[in-house]
Amino acid sequence: MTKKQIHLNGFAQHTVSPHAIGLWKHPDHQGSTHASTDYWVKLAQTLEKGKFDALFLADVTGVYDVYEGSNRAALEQAVQFPAHDPFLIISAMAHATERLGFALTGSATYIPPYKLARQYSTLDHLTNGRIGWNIVTSYLESEAINLGLDGMIPHDERYDRAEEYLDVVYKLWEKSWEEGALLNDPEANKYIDSTKVHPINHEGKYFKVPGVHLVEPSLQRTPVLFQAGASDRGTSFAAKHAEGIFTNTQNQKNATAELREFIRQLEPKLQKYGRTRQDVKIIPAVVTVVGGTEEEAQKKFQELRSYVDYDGAAALLSGHSGIDFSKFDPDSYVENIETNAIQSRLNNYTSTDPNHKWTIREAIQYHGFSLGSEVIVGTPEQIAARLEEISVEGDADGFNIRQTVNPSTLEDFVETVVPELQKRGIYRTDYEGETLREHYYGKGQQRLQNNHYGHSVQLEKEALV
Amino acid sequence: MTKKQIHLNGFAQHTVSPHAIGLWKHPDHQGSTHASTDYWVKLAQTLEKGKFDALFLADVTGVYDVYEGSNRAALEQAVQFPAHDPFLIISAMAHATERLGFALTGSATYIPPYKLARQYSTLDHLTNGRIGWNIVTSYLESEAINLGLDGMIPHDERYDRAEEYLDVVYKLWEKSWEEGALLNDPEANKYIDSTKVHPINHEGKYFKVPGVHLVEPSLQRTPVLFQAGASDRGTSFAAKHAEGIFTNTQNQKNATAELREFIRQLEPKLQKYGRTRQDVKIIPAVVTVVGGTEEEAQKKFQELRSYVDYDGAAALLSGHSGIDFSKFDPDSYVENIETNAIQSRLNNYTSTDPNHKWTIREAIQYHGFSLGSEVIVGTPEQIAARLEEISVEGDADGFNIRQTVNPSTLEDFVETVVPELQKRGIYRTDYEGETLREHYYGKGQQRLQNNHYGHSVQLEKEALV
Repeated sequence: MTKKQIHLNGFAQHTVSPHAIGLWKHPDHQGSTHASTDYWVKLAQTLEKGKFDALFLADVTGVYDVYEGSNRAALEQAVQFPAHDPFLIISAMAHATERLGFALTGSATYIPPYKLARQYSTLDHLTNGRIGWNIVTSYLESEAINLGLDGMIPHDERYDRAEEYLDVVYKLWEKSWEEGALLNDPEANKYIDSTKVHPINHEGKYFKVPGVHLVEPSLQRTPVLFQAGASDRGTSFAAKHAEGIFTNTQNQKNATAELREFIRQLEPKLQKYGRTRQDVKIIPAVVTVVGGTEEEAQKKFQELRSYVDYDGAAALLSGHSGIDFSKFDPDSYVENIETNAIQSRLNNYTSTDPNHKWTIREAIQYHGFSLGSEVIVGTPEQIAARLEEISVEGDADGFNIRQTVNPSTLEDFVETVVPELQKRGIYRTDYEGETLREHYYGKGQQRLQNNHYGHSVQLEKEALV
Repeated sequence: MTKKQIHLNGFAQHTVSPHAIGLWKHPDHQGSTHASTDYWVKLAQTLEKGKFDALFLADVTGVYDVYEGSNRAALEQAVQFPAHDPFLIISAMAHATERLGFALTGSATYIPPYKLARQYSTLDHLTNGRIGWNIVTSYLESEAINLGLDGMIPHDERYDRAEEYLDVVYKLWEKSWEEGALLNDPEANKYIDSTKVHPINHEGKYFKVPGVHLVEPSLQRTPVLFQAGASDRGTSFAAKHAEGIFTNTQNQKNATAELREFIRQLEPKLQKYGRTRQDVKIIPAVVTVVGGTEEEAQKKFQELRSYVDYDGAAALLSGHSGIDFSKFDPDSYVENIETNAIQSRLNNYTSTDPNHKWTIREAIQYHGFSLGSEVIVGTPEQIAARLEEISVEGDADGFNIRQTVNPSTLEDFVETVVPELQKRGIYRTDYEGETLREHYYGKGQQRLQNNHYGHSVQLEKEALV
């Protein structure tokens, strides 16, 4: 029997050192050159050499200013800041690669759907069908107010709005243009058969979009859809729309059980939308620290962690959680915190060593390195073995590989861990399909699967006259 | 004395055949491959070989549906449609070139200023200072309604709004980050000196943007600013903000007089903002048809024009003018039209041959080829001579070269006309500076000139505390 195969994404952001706070100070870290095309082209080529499914690009368009009610720590420690636009680096990488996909974060809260649909279609053409959309509804107050809203839209309303948003973009991507509408036929004197291009006439609670899609269908039409929401509402949204779910296994010592529980809760939701476990890929993030020997790897792990900055890590955690951690004494013990919600968040880290009495500082510093993802430290063989274990026992379909030192984390992974995964027969030795969706769902599956909700949207009848 | 130098931009759009309607049918036309990175990389390399200042990318995000109250003709003739997003092709071209600039159209009506500022700053970094912004306020009703507005904002209010918009982006680009704010200093444990990054605290009639700019200063800070508005309000806006003005010489036989008159009217407006004629480059568009002999060129001109499609050209002119030209009999004579505004628009073309009795069809077909720009037909020597004539007698600083057959119009120009311009000593043989602003204003001028309004915006005092 063929072994269960895993998928791999490189996890990045158009900033200095997004997922390892303080590591910008490491002498090998090249994140400060992220503003150049060279940086991204080289990274994409590394991932394609490693036969990765995709480069996953996260994004925020705000500043982490919950901690101390100030942006000081976020700026000093380059906490996902500066925040350059990730859409604009794709075409350079696409031109320099042939198969690597690009899972690009786009906000269903701050970009009009008509415009976002155009952007992803343009990119799906430029990449020959290698684009994915990581759907976010955005969580930073600073993002909302700078983009012209009075404040953040409440969490559940953001999702209501996102549901309608998805309807609009499905209509544009899947229904506005019939197959064969683009003729490019000089004899018939028609570039486009206008009878096969339909205005979508969408008029809902949040959006009014009457027009036709501005871009002809690309290879995938709808980009591969990813989602990362962990709330009940978020996972319902994912169960309906996502083809890939990005997760974080919060409990550092019990990742497989946590994943299985996540999937157990997801399955009835999938069922509700006529989908099964097989219709969605579950992709947790991991941090890998590889060494020639276990001892070497552990030494490297300690060395890397020594660069983590407490202030910066606290700014990130405060931004993500909405809790201002400057209000706690960093040298007090986690076990003495009286608020359960805060304690349980920090216990993700204390669980990595239950015999140690953890201070808040120590737990937050661990957060600054792992962001809640499991840290796998070891030889290439050990890392490959643990990834297989999470894949089989935790039922994960693949992994987002987080960087601590950019780009050497991913370079080391491609050079040393990928061959081990291939040796185990759990990872491709070459790409089979051409589009991103084919990487995930097999050669020939360029479009949304037949049972996906995106097919079911209908245009108003008047639109078809 | 050194001869007056000219500047050159290639004029394109992320669509099939934006400026020569019906020419998509020409056997040499490769516009149908515009959705690939190869197409753009090759075009950029051609322009850089020709030492062009920039590739100018126009954009619309709507459909030309005024003609017949329908999008039929626009779709059948690919009239600036499909309309892909031009922001997304820049990085591929930037990576494949070293000096060529990119003048990119962006709407001050439909993108929040906080987001647009981030996009241009990201691109100015990725291109090492080679980005320009062609500021538009957008004119298509279909654009407004699909992007969430109830209808188009009236012309003059669009400009009021654009004035405040520019204030916001100048604050972000020029004032939010002091020089030297980005330290990248491991010893001081500071990537950014947060005391040198200021929230702009903008609160005006149309926009409220409290935050700091998301991107550290790029080489140019503010992209090179272009504008093309021809109305009184439009040229006042240009006189205040633009470093380059794109014009169309409407009268095909009197371009130099028309340009001089345009400049005569512009000068007092420039003065009002403390600027002179030398502070702004005037860049009309031209169509060039080059042949080995004059006869060959004329033959080619007739051959190219034979591809122009009446319906498509009428759809474009109807969209630009807001007049539905389907209401006129195409075979009636222009001189018999009773509405002056319409007649004068068509007289741009009838003036090319006053001895001929023009029908509406003929005039509109000429429009579909030239879009109101002068068509220069001849040998490389003749074209170079005419460009020098327009530059000297019309006081133009350079030209946007329109394509009729993509990309051979620009390839022919670079191969044959550029050497003639260089022979005349009126065009560079190599780039001197590195940034786009230096191409226009000389080595060393990377930032907005000292007397430019953009320097004068001030942050609220509270922002500096």
